[in-house]
Amino acid sequence: MRIHIIGTGLLGASLGLALSAQKYQVSLEDTSPTAQQLAADLGAGTVASEAPDAEDPQIVVIATPPDVAAHTIATALATYPNATVTDVASVKTSLLESVRELVERSDLDRYIGCHPMAGREKSGAIAARSDLFTARPWVICSDEDTPQDRLGEIVAMAEATGSSVIHLDPRIHDAAVAKVSHVPQVIASLVASQLRHAPLEEVALAGQGLRDVTRIAASDPRLWTQILAGNSEEIRSVLLDLRTELDEVITALELGPGSTGALARAIALGNEGHERIPGKHGQAPTKYAVVTILVPDTPGTLATLFKDIGDLNINVEDFRMDHAPGQKLGIVDVSVVPATQQELEIGLLSKGWQIPESAIEKEGIA
Amino acid sequence: MRIHIIGTGLLGASLGLALSAQKYQVSLEDTSPTAQQLAADLGAGTVASEAPDAEDPQIVVIATPPDVAAHTIATALATYPNATVTDVASVKTSLLESVRELVERSDLDRYIGCHPMAGREKSGAIAARSDLFTARPWVICSDEDTPQDRLGEIVAMAEATGSSVIHLDPRIHDAAVAKVSHVPQVIASLVASQLRHAPLEEVALAGQGLRDVTRIAASDPRLWTQILAGNSEEIRSVLLDLRTELDEVITALELGPGSTGALARAIALGNEGHERIPGKHGQAPTKYAVVTILVPDTPGTLATLFKDIGDLNINVEDFRMDHAPGQKLGIVDVSVVPATQQELEIGLLSKGWQIPESAIEKEGIA
Repeated sequence: MRIHIIGTGLLGASLGLALSAQKYQVSLEDTSPTAQQLAADLGAGTVASEAPDAEDPQIVVIATPPDVAAHTIATALATYPNATVTDVASVKTSLLESVRELVERSDLDRYIGCHPMAGREKSGAIAARSDLFTARPWVICSDEDTPQDRLGEIVAMAEATGSSVIHLDPRIHDAAVAKVSHVPQVIASLVASQLRHAPLEEVALAGQGLRDVTRIAASDPRLWTQILAGNSEEIRSVLLDLRTELDEVITALELGPGSTGALARAIALGNEGHERIPGKHGQAPTKYAVVTILVPDTPGTLATLFKDIGDLNINVEDFRMDHAPGQKLGIVDVSVVPATQQELEIGLLSKGWQIPESAIEKEGIA
Repeated sequence: MRIHIIGTGLLGASLGLALSAQKYQVSLEDTSPTAQQLAADLGAGTVASEAPDAEDPQIVVIATPPDVAAHTIATALATYPNATVTDVASVKTSLLESVRELVERSDLDRYIGCHPMAGREKSGAIAARSDLFTARPWVICSDEDTPQDRLGEIVAMAEATGSSVIHLDPRIHDAAVAKVSHVPQVIASLVASQLRHAPLEEVALAGQGLRDVTRIAASDPRLWTQILAGNSEEIRSVLLDLRTELDEVITALELGPGSTGALARAIALGNEGHERIPGKHGQAPTKYAVVTILVPDTPGTLATLFKDIGDLNINVEDFRMDHAPGQKLGIVDVSVVPATQQELEIGLLSKGWQIPESAIEKEGIA
């Protein structure tokens, strides 16, 4: 199956990586030659101008910024008269309306809007991952006019990335993403915004709660302005409900003792909503075991640690270090497949590394 | 050093675990015999009634729910006339006022308010961890009347848990936690609350962004009602600012095309605030330079990379690897102080490493 991807940012490049690994032939195109080449170097596919079969792809995926998606879809439908054209944009109703205005009725049947619900707060091909879509929902907004064979191709492509296909009406999709994605983005940005003028001694107290609430506040303003503008009605409706509840909290805080019931209610309603969020889809199906090592803050220590891990011949799946200045120790989290966890802990303990939460007693391995 | 901990929930039990590991003698007391025994069984200390020296502790730590903290502090000052009494409550100004009303001026010098800024969305001794305080800020609110020897005892105890001591005025502390902890809690609860009536097909689209924004919405309403009520003025002030910005977003969404500037501004201000949040373990928001290296996914490669960085004698401040199964290349982000970035890039490029976003052209260093 030949796939042509237009737009090699985070989503386009990640899709290329995922599909290339599944024996799809992927050709890549981007208005930026650098971005296009980077995606190809990462293994996401072949630059289109160098790919022999890129002229007649079965599927064209539009993974451009949302504000040019409609025009790029229309152009692709004209350029590739046999291809099924799809996209990955986060808002579906307004995009579909724009596409309907731009293309012939007969071509419209070859367009199937999609929204793979995957992303990161980082952007660009450099942030791409072949497992970005693994176990994530991939929404397909087809209708009764969509030819079944074309729909089948898109479903097969989505499933090849490891995602879970969900068929939704565009309007239901847009109402859903307003609640689960767009409003959380707006609110995370507003919470982070309150820190702009906070003195350093105040932000120094930041903990994991704040970091989690505001992680997505690092997102790209250009992209998000397009997304918010494209789904404005649905987002506004949720924000108005949220503001009503916010006003109740503000009033309760003003009234003081006697109105703590409203505060308790706000937190309890949050509990209730939180319980509705289904289990993690985002993580890779294999759970890695994490071994936490305390590392003295001296030059060369990490090199020694890696040499020691390398000598054990254990493959490291993920590695994170947090290092606080003034602190005598850094904290290193090494992720490995669970079957090798014990071996890693024994090996590192025997070489004198500190693993505070190891289940293996140091005495037991002498 | 003998420490008596009153209240063996998450914080009290974690403190007991951390101090017991440091050769402190810890005795435990809780109004719930079950909670008290559980903490002791986990290794947090000895149940007070069974501890020979529990009658004359040097330090008494009050780790009860905030609404009974003031009375418990007053009682402890009377019961243990030689001890320094401290607490772990999240709000300091209103607690100090209550304590002042309850105790004699002469006893007040033995009370030193603290706020170890550690926690989890889970509660109870069962969620306790000996490393809960590791590399976290531990705020001490002493004043000029505090005897230096008692202050020294509290600092030593805090440092024994691995935390970083910060001395703050109670009012500055309360303003800070309103921004970095209490407002994020309120807002996370309000975002989660909007999901209460969302159909299952909508919440099925939840991603990591929503999960992060709402993780702390699972927090205990009783505890949080007490915290919010105790710091109502500071929280209300921040929420009013946030509401003003929320109203600007709502208006921009209503006005539609032409007012997207306000949407872009909201996300950009969020970026700005987010950048002020210091690194995970409380480090100052010094921006490190990040060098991104493409690493072939073969065993031993990371060890070679670290050896090469080690040979350059450059200290690594932070290190992250993303390694996706099936991908031909891993992506490694190495953070260093900006002054050493160029040296690191030149050194690694000359050894054949791929640095796609390097400002230094590979040709230039041959």
